[in-house]
Parts: sequence; structure tokens; C-alpha cells
Amino acid sequence: MKVAIVMGSDSDLPIMQKSAEILKQFGVQYSMRIYSAHRTPDEARQFAQSARQEGYGVIIAGAGKAAHLAGALASQTILPIIGIPIKASTLDGVDALFSTVMMPSGVPVATVAIDGAVNAALLAIQILALSDTALADKLLAYKEEARQAVIAKNNQLNNL
Amino acid sequence: MKVAIVMGSDSDLPIMQKSAEILKQFGVQYSMRIYSAHRTPDEARQFAQSARQEGYGVIIAGAGKAAHLAGALASQTILPIIGIPIKASTLDGVDALFSTVMMPSGVPVATVAIDGAVNAALLAIQILALSDTALADKLLAYKEEARQAVIAKNNQLNNL
Amino acid sequence: MKVAIVMGSDSDLPIMQKSAEILKQFGVQYSMRIYSAHRTPDEARQFAQSARQEGYGVIIAGAGKAAHLAGALASQTILPIIGIPIKASTLDGVDALFSTVMMPSGVPVATVAIDGAVNAALLAIQILALSDTALADKLLAYKEEARQAVIAKNNQLNNL
Amino acid sequence: MKVAIVMGSDSDLPIMQKSAEILKQFGVQYSMRIYSAHRTPDEARQFAQSARQEGYGVIIAGAGKAAHLAGALASQTILPIIGIPIKASTLDGVDALFSTVMMPSGVPVATVAIDGAVNAALLAIQILALSDTALADKLLAYKEEARQAVIAKNNQLNNL
Amino acid sequence: MKVAIVMGSDSDLPIMQKSAEILKQFGVQYSMRIYSAHRTPDEARQFAQSARQEGYGVIIAGAGKAAHLAGALASQTILPIIGIPIKASTLDGVDALFSTVMMPSGVPVATVAIDGAVNAALLAIQILALSDTALADKLLAYKEEARQAVIAKNNQLNNL
Amino acid sequence: MKVAIVMGSDSDLPIMQKSAEILKQFGVQYSMRIYSAHRTPDEARQFAQSARQEGYGVIIAGAGKAAHLAGALASQTILPIIGIPIKASTLDGVDALFSTVMMPSGVPVATVAIDGAVNAALLAIQILALSDTALADKLLAYKEEARQAVIAKNNQLNNL
Amino acid sequence: MKVAIVMGSDSDLPIMQKSAEILKQFGVQYSMRIYSAHRTPDEARQFAQSARQEGYGVIIAGAGKAAHLAGALASQTILPIIGIPIKASTLDGVDALFSTVMMPSGVPVATVAIDGAVNAALLAIQILALSDTALADKLLAYKEEARQAVIAKNNQLNNL
Amino acid sequence: MKVAIVMGSDSDLPIMQKSAEILKQFGVQYSMRIYSAHRTPDEARQFAQSARQEGYGVIIAGAGKAAHLAGALASQTILPIIGIPIKASTLDGVDALFSTVMMPSGVPVATVAIDGAVNAALLAIQILALSDTALADKLLAYKEEARQAVIAKNNQLNNL
Repeated sequence: MKVAIVMGSDSDLPIMQKSAEILKQFGVQYSMRIYSAHRTPDEARQFAQSARQEGYGVIIAGAGKAAHLAGALASQTILPIIGIPIKASTLDGVDALFSTVMMPSGVPVATVAIDGAVNAALLAIQILALSDTALADKLLAYKEEARQAVIAKNNQLNNL
Repeated sequence: MKVAIVMGSDSDLPIMQKSAEILKQFGVQYSMRIYSAHRTPDEARQFAQSARQEGYGVIIAGAGKAAHLAGALASQTILPIIGIPIKASTLDGVDALFSTVMMPSGVPVATVAIDGAVNAALLAIQILALSDTALADKLLAYKEEARQAVIAKNNQLNNL
Repeated sequence: MKVAIVMGSDSDLPIMQKSAEILKQFGVQYSMRIYSAHRTPDEARQFAQSARQEGYGVIIAGAGKAAHLAGALASQTILPIIGIPIKASTLDGVDALFSTVMMPSGVPVATVAIDGAVNAALLAIQILALSDTALADKLLAYKEEARQAVIAKNNQLNNL
Repeated sequence: MKVAIVMGSDSDLPIMQKSAEILKQFGVQYSMRIYSAHRTPDEARQFAQSARQEGYGVIIAGAGKAAHLAGALASQTILPIIGIPIKASTLDGVDALFSTVMMPSGVPVATVAIDGAVNAALLAIQILALSDTALADKLLAYKEEARQAVIAKNNQLNNL
Repeated sequence: MKVAIVMGSDSDLPIMQKSAEILKQFGVQYSMRIYSAHRTPDEARQFAQSARQEGYGVIIAGAGKAAHLAGALASQTILPIIGIPIKASTLDGVDALFSTVMMPSGVPVATVAIDGAVNAALLAIQILALSDTALADKLLAYKEEARQAVIAKNNQLNNL
Repeated sequence: MKVAIVMGSDSDLPIMQKSAEILKQFGVQYSMRIYSAHRTPDEARQFAQSARQEGYGVIIAGAGKAAHLAGALASQTILPIIGIPIKASTLDGVDALFSTVMMPSGVPVATVAIDGAVNAALLAIQILALSDTALADKLLAYKEEARQAVIAKNNQLNNL
Repeated sequence: MKVAIVMGSDSDLPIMQKSAEILKQFGVQYSMRIYSAHRTPDEARQFAQSARQEGYGVIIAGAGKAAHLAGALASQTILPIIGIPIKASTLDGVDALFSTVMMPSGVPVATVAIDGAVNAALLAIQILALSDTALADKLLAYKEEARQAVIAKNNQLNNL
Repeated sequence: MKVAIVMGSDSDLPIMQKSAEILKQFGVQYSMRIYSAHRTPDEARQFAQSARQEGYGVIIAGAGKAAHLAGALASQTILPIIGIPIKASTLDGVDALFSTVMMPSGVPVATVAIDGAVNAALLAIQILALSDTALADKLLAYKEEARQAVIAKNNQLNNL
């Protein structure tokens, strides 16, 4: 199953590319798209309606301000949608966080931290790994590597 | 031109009815609808796409939490959309306010106060009154009445 | 009908000019004014009281901090007032947003996003377009252009 | 010199009456008025413009939501204006606090706590006491009484 | 694959039971547990470490205040963790929301709305449905039902 | 009567100097002091206790973070205390605002905007002007000048 | 060493009594006092200055709104001060939290959760237990009991 | 007794080093460590479980975002834990503050200001000084020095 990385504007690309890098690193197939919930609502809808048939398993959606993209996609598919609230106004990303996470009953969005594109990708991989043992093993290795990196930094600090 | 009062859920009805009462009082034609941006996105879209041809001049949209309804309608029409953020979660309506007002460039929503259904209707009437002198006169009278009501209360207070 | 762009201080000009540019682009007549709700309250009031007779259809008002300008104008006219909360303090524009949007019943202000001058102008045009088919057509074209711009960026991204 | 207690709506009366009680207790002359910055802006303005000549020394102004009253009065007089932000929306009074305290340079409002009508009156008395020794003595006595009340409660607690 | 519903305290049960009801309705196997990140950290850890081998596919974790439970579980497993911030202090659930969603890179928590137990369960089902067509069909039916419920309420409103 | 400008730390000086400039401009006598509510509580207390006898009429107190200075001074004198919340932490001055304005009943602090040193001085002058007609005339002139400055900028804008 | 429980007002007693109950349960000597940072600043100061000599090891201070009590005590002693922000205004305790925790460098206050009187007492006991093995053993037992209580509730839930 | 300075990431080092400098200045033994509550939970736990036996008296824990480190350590030891919320996201450190201070009953964290590493060290020293008179004397001297520094700056200001 593939992962779709969707963003509301090309200004979100520097953040969203971090999702792509993680997916690449794990060998997960993905595509990147710009669909605006407000400027190209029909394109966004058509993508969400066909994503499952096109082989997507998870959609990562990043948007700022009144961030409706993740919710708009979620309204059109039963695929899990991962929402990244992006800081794009003076409000520190709180506007995007509330717009993404406070979804009404019936239409969940799996929200990660503001600008949390790395975690969005890891969450997508965790989901896909439920039916892909090789991917699960990569996650275990990644987790161990992250652990070793902290341990190494701790040792380095103590050697100072 | 008519006004459409759209709400995301029937639980918003007690708030939204105040819009209806004001429109009725001013003799403005209106209809009330329940369209959820997340549960009936297609019905909401179809309404927004046809509203202008059906004779609507303004759409009032009220929703709570990650309140996408006003923005979703705005993405499909050039009619002015008036958004009412509704308190429907533990967050005092701030989630709905940010989700409604912080729209990206290109797709405005005319946002009123949290639970501000009376003002939403008055704003719709102000818009319609631009090309309807009788309606404008009613607004002037309404404004004068509100003024007299405050003056009367002030007099009453001073007579205590 | 003309549009008035009013700002509380000349420091708001860089934001408010974006409203002017949009109006110019659509061929809508406008004037720009600096009226402070607190330093020139009488000038602001006189303008609001006469704006309708002078041929204005909509007033856009931008102000920061305890942003009273839009509300002060709204108290003196039945013209629709569009309020732009401007970030002008350490509080990220939240002070201006609350001061602009949380108006009491009877006196609405159509609030757009913090620093949302482009949308304020588009909202004004949407309102005027209700009785101006040529303007409505320009709005439809603008919306289509915005859509095509996103589609083009999406294509560009996929060709990378 | 007299003190004026002005409120934006008769719904603010239960809060504002606490200011009146304190002024009464100190033997300070006062009047109470309802002037809405938005519904009776001209009455509010006329009062502010003539208050100094009418013998007022301080104006206490309480209002909720987008609380413009204190600022509107301050724009029309050089009398010190004491602003009481009143909780009158879902936003816990933060909207009124920001609308009252975040005034632009040139037009100060002496803001007290949300719903802080007792302190507003005490502040007014402190101001008048600068040129009224008898009033100053009453303030000293009041402060001592408040101190003794805490001491008594402390003793009572320790005797339990 | 089963779903685990974990809560930090038995006071969270009225919220968390809504997750259980949805899972039951969809015929998804689940167990409910009380593990406190702070009072029974070792029990929580041991559960998280063994959950994958015990056949769990998703863990739903609800907690209030400094809500560390979801993050603590996420640190010990590669299973997707769904976090429900629960309102359990004076802070309206914002403390729990920030504690749950603002996870550092490397350890994602899929956060839903404050008290969003229904959506947490639906998200878990969406994840499991990726490899379970029967479950996917139930989700499609559920979505259609929710749509029909809104349409019915809309019709009812219009018949009034 | 003199005005005291007190600050909690010398890092507040760039803000507080704006108070001094205004007082100088109006010919009001003032002194500047650094008293920390937390590092020199006794010096702060002694100053507050003697300020009235030393001929002070108003104390302006500026402090950041958990800004207790204004309140600490207010607890020791019946002089009006004007509090300036200063942005001195990551919290945008909201910490200082709440610490300054939310005083308990009995001990008011006249709070101005975050970093609002100009308004603090003007408020002090408004208070002193109650018993100083020459000062009152200067305030009227200052207000008129501010008005003319806005009018001039408005004219300039229209001539562009 | 004894623990002092100080509160700013007798209205804080229902919260602060929970600290007393914990200390009693652990057999730690304590006294309760009402000292207001603003109404009895001198009594508060004198207590803080003499507390160490009187055999106190820790002071717990609870206050609401602009909660200066903990900081005021901390400015007068080198004893560790534990601050409890108490919800006592419309602001949900955030005012008290910021006023208590955001102390300037040099004068720390060990802040616990809003209304967190149980944890304040436990923290005091943890501090005293550093030089009191019997107390440390009681803490270990308390922690184990809390753990067992959660385990019991978990078992009970699973037996349902 | 020693003090442990623990941080969640090496990016916290610039803040946390200020704790180390204070401890060094007071001649208190300390060690610095990097333990992530989420990437090295087991290392963090093992440290917390053995810290008391290894001669630590206080643990200072600094972390950003969903800052679980202090709470995670507190769940495993009866040593007093001092939490430093670190600004590490777009949210100004409020996320870390709420995640650190809003601990549930039973597991206190002594929280200092956002980025408050100096105060964290001083608080640790205050705690250790309860059973170390020499350390107490150093604290008294430090407090006096801080006082003199403010007095000197005050004198300097007045000589300008």
C-alpha cells in the first residue's frame, strides 16, 4: 500500500518534504500532491474518493491556518487520514491544530504535532507495518537507532 | 434575494434559530438546512454550487469544533458566506472561531462572534439592503429602536 | 458603489494596501483613509455617518491591539463593515481578533483572518457582486485562476 | 469631584453595583449610567465630552465581549477612565480584558481585573483622595480593616 | 488483530466506554485496561512491550492533565497509538491535548479531539480495515448511515 | 505631586524610559527607581510606605514574567499604582499581564497595555491633572496634537 | 522540620486542607496560616523571615488570581517554597499558574498543578524525607499503595 | 547529596548548562545526563530507580514539547524532581509547561518557569541546604548579593 502526502499549498512543501524523506528511507511508496481544501475542493475530493482504489493505505495531509484539508479528505474516504497542523499564521499553529484535531464524531483525523511531518510519516509506517513484517522490523531498527543516538550523546556529554 | 441558514448539526439549531427569527422579523425570505461538512460533504457542496442560481444572496453557516462548514461552502460559491463559530466542545468556541475566521487568501468567510446568530442575520440583511431601500429603512429603524431601548434602560436606572 | 478602506494608523498601511490592490485589480472604486477610533473618533464617526450617502457600499476597517475601529464605524452606519484584526502588539493579533469579532448583538462586524486584507477585499467584492453581474463574472474567473494555479503547482511538483 | 459608573448594558448591573456600594460606603458622590459604545455611541460621546465640566473626576466603565466602552469614553475626555472587563461571552472575559487593556498609545484605560468592580471603585477613590485628605484617611482605615479581617481569620483558623 | 483501550484512571471510564461501544458495534475484539503512566509505569510499560505479540494491532490511550500515557506507551512499541486527551482539570483539556499531541520526532501519537473516544475507536477500525475487507465494508456502511441521519434531520427540519 | 517610575530590573529600562520622556515633555517631576519585588522586597516596601509623604502622587511600576512589583507596592500605599506588564519571557507578556491586572479585591492596580509605558505616563498625568488646570490644558493640547497628526497622515495618504 | 501551609484567603481553605490531610497522614508536623500578600504583606513577610528559625523546612503557599503569595514568601527566605496556583477567577487558574511559576531568576517557586494541594504536600514530604529515612519509607509505601489501587481497579474492570 | 541534571535532548543543553553553572558556583556535586522519556525510556527509568541509592538528592529534568521527562522520572522515585519546561516548539513553551506542571495527584513535579534553569538549580540547593548549613549560608550570601546588585543598579540609575 502506498502513502499519499497531500498539502494545502506549495508553501507547506519544506515541512511536508520531511514526511517524504522518512517514507523514502523506509522504502515505502508515496506520491506528493497539492490539493487545497478551499481553492481546489473538487480535486481534493476526487483524490480522496479514489485513493483507496488506487492503492493508497494512508493519507498524510498538512495545512495551516483554518486547516480543513485533513478533515475534508477524511469526509470522503475510510482510509486513515493523518493531519499535520502547519504554522502558517501569527497564531503559532494553534489555529491549524484546533482545525485539524477537533473533528466531530464520525470523522476522525489522526493528528500529530504542529509541523510534525517526521512523526506523520512514522505513524503512516506504523499503520502499514501491521500487515508488513519487513516494515515492522525496519521500525524496530529505527527505534533502536534513535535510542542508540541518545545513548551516544549521553556518553559524549559525560566524557566532556 | 433569499438567505440560507445552514448548520453542521441539529444540535446547533437553538443557536441558529436566532438568525431565523431576525430574518423573519425583517421580512427576508430564508430557508434552514442541516449540511455537515464532514458527514454530508456532497450535499453541502451541491447546495453551495447551486445556491446562487436558486436565488440565494447570502449563506449563513454555523458549526462547532473544527468548524469547516462555512469554509467548505465558501470554496464552492462566490456568494458572501457568514460564519458563526459555535461553542460545541470544551474549548469555549475558540476552536470553532479559529477554524472559521483564519481562512487562507482567496476564500473569505465573514465571521461573527461565537454563537453570534443575531449578528449573522443582521449582517446578511445589511448586505441585502445595499440594493433594497425598504430593507435599509428597516435596518435604520431597528438601529434606532436598539438605541431607544438603551436610553430607556438608562432612564429607568436613574429613576431608581 | 465604492469601497472605503479605513485603517487606525499609518503603520497598518503595508497590510491594508493589499486590500487596495485587489480592489484595483477588480476595477472597484475605493478610497483609503486613516481614522483612529481613539485619536480621531469624531472624524471616524462623521465618515461612517455619511459613507452611505457618499456612495460607499462596504467599509473595510483594519486596526490592531484593542481594535475598536470596525466596531466604532459599525455603530454609526447600516453599511456592512468588514473588520481586519491586525497584529500590532506582542499578542499575535489575538487582542485585535477578539476586539473585532466579539461584537455585541445588534452591531455586526464581518471579521476576516488576522492580517487578512486580501480576503477583506474579496469579501467586499462578493457583496458588491450581488447586484453587479460583471463583477460576479470577474470573481468566478478569479476563483478559477486560483484553482488553476494550485493545479499547475501540483503538476509541477509531480514532474519533479 | 463625582464618579460616574457607566456600563454597556443593563446585564452588567449586578457587577457594576459593587462599584456603587464601595463609593457609597466611602461617601463619594456618583451616578450610574447605561451607555453602549455600539448602540448609543452618541450618548456615550456626549457624556464623555461633558463629564469634566459636570464635575466628574473619574469614570468607571464596564463592558463585556469586544468591550469598547472604556476606550470610546477615553477618546473623548482627559479624565482618567477605569475599565472593568466583564465576562459576558464564552471566552471567560479574556475578550473583554484584551479589548479594554490593549489600548494604543495616547489613550490610556486604567484596567482592573475581570469583573473587578470593587477594585475599580477603590482605584477611583485613591485618585480622588490625592486632593482629599479625609478620603485618604478613609482609605487608610479601609486598608487597616481589610488587614485586621485577614488577621482575624488567621487567628480563627489557628484556634480550630 | 485486537484493540486495547487503556486509560490512566478509572475516572476516565465514562469517556473511554464510548470507544468500547463503537468497537463492539463493529465486532472488533478489544480489552479495557487501567494503567497509569505515573502510578503504574511498569505495568504500562510491560503491557506496551508485549501488546504486539499478544495480538493487539492498535492501542487507544486516554488520559487527562499532563497526559503522558499515550506517549509512554508509544515509547515502548511500534504499534500505532491513538491518544485521547481527556478534560480532567480546570484547563478545558488543553493541558491534555498539548501533552498528547506535541510529541517529539520519532515517537508519534495519533491524537483525536478532546474527549473524542468515538473517533478514537473509528480511527482504530480504519487502521484495522486496511487488511480486513469486511471491516472496511462496515465502515462504508457506517459512513453512509451517518450521512443518511443528517439527510433525515435536514428533511425533518424542512418539514417543520 | 511627583510621579515615581519603578521597574523590577534594569532590563526594563528601554520600555520604562518612554514613561519618563512623556512626563518630561509635560513638565511633571519624576524619579526613576529599580526595586525588585523579589530581590529587594524590603527596599520596594519602604519606598511604597514613604512615597506619599515624600510627595509622590502616582507610582508607575513595570515588571515582567510573574510581575508582582505593582501589586507589592499597592499593598503598602493608598497611592494609585499604575502597572505596566512587560514582555520578558517566551509568553508574549501574558504572564505579566495576568500577574498585574488580576489583583484581588481591596488592592487595585491600574493596568495598561503590555509594554504600554507611554500610556502609563499619560494616565499618571490625567490623574495629577484633576487638581492641576495647567496640566489639564497640556493634556487637551496633546490630545489635539495627536488628532492633528492622524488628520495630517490621512491627508498625506489621500494626496498620494 | 515542620511544614507551613499558607493561603492567601480563607476561601482557599477547601483546597489547602487537602495538603493538611496528607501531612497528617504522614505524621508530618504542620501549621496552617492565612497571610495575604496584598492585605497583610507585613505579616506574610515576618512569617517568611522567621520560618526557618521556627523550625519550618518547607512552606506551601496557595493563592489565586494574581497569585503573589508564594513569590512574596520566597523573596524573604531560603526555604523551599511550594506554590499552588488556585482557580479563583474566570480564568481557570491560568492567571494564578503564570503568577506563581514564571518567577524571575534568583527566586524560585516549586509550582505544582492548579489546585494541586495533594501533590504540594507530597512534594514537601519528599523534600523532608531526604534527611528522614522513616518518612522516605512511608513515601515508598504510599507509592506502592497508589500502585496497588490502580492495579485493583484494573482487575475490577477486567472482571466486569 | 548530589544533583542530577537530566535533559530530554542535547538541544536542551544551552538551557540546562545554566543549572550546572549555578550548582558549580555553590560547590554542589552534579552530573549531567541525556535521557529521553520517549527514545530511551528504559535508561531514564533505570536511572530514576537507582538515583537515590547512588547518592542523588534532587533530580532536575528539562524537556520541551509534550515534556514527559520530569513526570516519567517522578513515577519511579521518591526523590524530589524539579521540572524545567523548555521552549522547543512553536507554542512558546506552554505545551512543555502544561505537560510538566499539571501532574496527577500522587506524583508531584516541582515546576519552575519556562527555560528557568537558574531557578531549578537554586531550588535544588535550597532543598539540599535544609540539612547543610554551609550551603544555607551560601544561599543567604547569594540572596544578599542579588539584593546588592539591584541596589547598585538603582544607585547607578539615579546618578545618571
